[in-house]
Amino acid sequence: MEYKFSDRCKNLEGNAIREIFKLISRPDIISFAGGMPASLALPKDDVLKIIDDLLTSDRAIALLQYGATEGYAPYLEAGREYVKRVGINTSDSSEILAISGGQQGIDLTFKAFINKGDVVLVEAPTYVAVPHIAKTYEAKLVGVASYEDGINLRDLENKIITENPKLLYLVPTFSNPTGKTLPVEKRKEIARITAKHNVILLEDNPYGELRYDGQTIPAIKSYDEAGNVVYLTSFSKTISPGMRVGLAVASAPVIRKLTIGKQATDVHTVTLSQAVATEFLKRGILDESLKRNIPVYKEKRDAMLKAMDKYFPKSAKWTHPSGGLFIWVTFPSNVDVSTDIFREAIARKVAYVSGDSSFVDGSGKNCLRLNFSNATVDDINKGIKILGELLKERVEGKC
Amino acid sequence: MEYKFSDRCKNLEGNAIREIFKLISRPDIISFAGGMPASLALPKDDVLKIIDDLLTSDRAIALLQYGATEGYAPYLEAGREYVKRVGINTSDSSEILAISGGQQGIDLTFKAFINKGDVVLVEAPTYVAVPHIAKTYEAKLVGVASYEDGINLRDLENKIITENPKLLYLVPTFSNPTGKTLPVEKRKEIARITAKHNVILLEDNPYGELRYDGQTIPAIKSYDEAGNVVYLTSFSKTISPGMRVGLAVASAPVIRKLTIGKQATDVHTVTLSQAVATEFLKRGILDESLKRNIPVYKEKRDAMLKAMDKYFPKSAKWTHPSGGLFIWVTFPSNVDVSTDIFREAIARKVAYVSGDSSFVDGSGKNCLRLNFSNATVDDINKGIKILGELLKERVEGKC
Repeated sequence: MEYKFSDRCKNLEGNAIREIFKLISRPDIISFAGGMPASLALPKDDVLKIIDDLLTSDRAIALLQYGATEGYAPYLEAGREYVKRVGINTSDSSEILAISGGQQGIDLTFKAFINKGDVVLVEAPTYVAVPHIAKTYEAKLVGVASYEDGINLRDLENKIITENPKLLYLVPTFSNPTGKTLPVEKRKEIARITAKHNVILLEDNPYGELRYDGQTIPAIKSYDEAGNVVYLTSFSKTISPGMRVGLAVASAPVIRKLTIGKQATDVHTVTLSQAVATEFLKRGILDESLKRNIPVYKEKRDAMLKAMDKYFPKSAKWTHPSGGLFIWVTFPSNVDVSTDIFREAIARKVAYVSGDSSFVDGSGKNCLRLNFSNATVDDINKGIKILGELLKERVEGKC
Repeated sequence: MEYKFSDRCKNLEGNAIREIFKLISRPDIISFAGGMPASLALPKDDVLKIIDDLLTSDRAIALLQYGATEGYAPYLEAGREYVKRVGINTSDSSEILAISGGQQGIDLTFKAFINKGDVVLVEAPTYVAVPHIAKTYEAKLVGVASYEDGINLRDLENKIITENPKLLYLVPTFSNPTGKTLPVEKRKEIARITAKHNVILLEDNPYGELRYDGQTIPAIKSYDEAGNVVYLTSFSKTISPGMRVGLAVASAPVIRKLTIGKQATDVHTVTLSQAVATEFLKRGILDESLKRNIPVYKEKRDAMLKAMDKYFPKSAKWTHPSGGLFIWVTFPSNVDVSTDIFREAIARKVAYVSGDSSFVDGSGKNCLRLNFSNATVDDINKGIKILGELLKERVEGKC
């Protein structure tokens, strides 16, 4: 039959990175394309031990039965304690919601606020899933310029005035895709500017715990006096992505709308995932696990940066992230790494994500995102050498 | 701040039953209100044994890492085998999708097909979550009359012609809320009528395995020659609702749209939930568990029907379901069980769901839904006696 798909879905293709995943799952490819935690970092023994404790306790039945859309009460309590690490104080559990991974929080926030045609501002470049989600709500995405230290505040305020956006989406700490972190002063300014103009700030913080240098910076949400910030975090990068469990923090009226929106889709987040995350927090296993894994990630980041210094063409510039999973590389504007070079890299068995998928206006073909968390140090050295040589062959002549 | 919520969410309240859940979670209340499997039926030892096997196997890391939106490959294979039980043959895994509970399948189907203002037909009464989901897509719901043996075909075809719907939603087997089952001949007719008029049929089958009398009936999807049927099933009622795992089966182009829609919300279904369901299927544990639980549910249904015969007013009529979780009670049209009587029942510590939440036009105040799966036989007898006496006091004078 001739399917009459909805307007939002008619021309919707899969998000670039999820689609690349399928191409690059071949084991012979060195992948810098994903955003996956290191497989060896996944704490399978801790997860099993906890599930064993939980399913032999008197809570077992409650964990397998239907749960509240709002979340499993001990998880919400542990979550309220957890977000204090970034300076967020909630008055009670009406300001927090269990979500099925951080990305569901983006989807639910769009559902709660966005009508067809509404403007959403994003840093350019932005997290690749956001343009995809925006299409499912028929939102208009507008990019805001990004500087060395993150989003440009003058351009932000200009765009707020000219575009009248409902929402601003940001990853202020170890951004995806750039790895940049917004300094404290800019965080305060963003809280002030968005509140002043009645714009919802969607602050996404999936990577904040993966810090390799320096000290924790407070979330923008911690400066939120107006109640206009929706804060998202997730345990995908610190416990397990496959368990799909995160948290949204916002004012009670906003959490209520997110909850009603969630009720209509997956009813509630998997209770066992929530209970496992609770125990990771309460028993201090999350911190032990971070203590074990951060040196590993730091070593990988350093190895990648060092190999890039050695093998990448001199015309390329890249970020030096103090945490997270990604390095962002920019070539001169006449270079295109999105088509021929990308295909040749795959042919030479190295994968990356080309930058255009992170822009909303088709730009970014001269940029690429490298993930350093999931390959071994040996593969990082090998892969960056292959990639560097390819880039030198193809790019150097042009610069 | 003054929140500018989206049109779809502005006036959206929580779905009636999820909200009642919160009221009735007090342990002193005998609840016939939910749709929960019996807590004692939840196979916690099997789940733990399987998770133990999985997380000590060489698949452990794959289960905790990011997975494909389409689903965990062994789950999709086991799922293709599983749906053969209701006569559904898939040509390959492009026709099946792992979903985070059956309800997500409803949401994703609406996302794929429904524009604002599009008409969706539902049996009147229908599953209470559907009006809620429909509001989040700003769909127009139109009820189709229901007879003894389910949806009325003449009214269905009339409404298709006059309303030009995109979608028809049905629970053909042990319907929620009525417990009715559509006979085979009507199934074939519905497949024919919807295909002829280019209407997507969303066939929801969460209860089909819970059959207490008679033989399995093929799904409407098994008669789908045009590719217009989306079939949903779930392991919430047979393994664990808290694990949020189900299946959607449809033609490859439709599954592709559902997948892209899912990618934008929860990325993928919890892999451990999919893997546990896979083992329940492959090791025959699901069938063992059903063999254990069906006599228990049957006993509860019989106890409730017997107690209703004894205690309910003679003017009430009710369904005699051969499976599932619900009995549907209809009083004369001048009776209202949705307000005073409901409140008094709660005061006497018995809960039910009043029928109006299952209708889209405010009717159904003279109906109520009783769940028999979650209370003990003793509580069923006690609760039905209390409810019957209350109803006799309030209703009998009116008839």
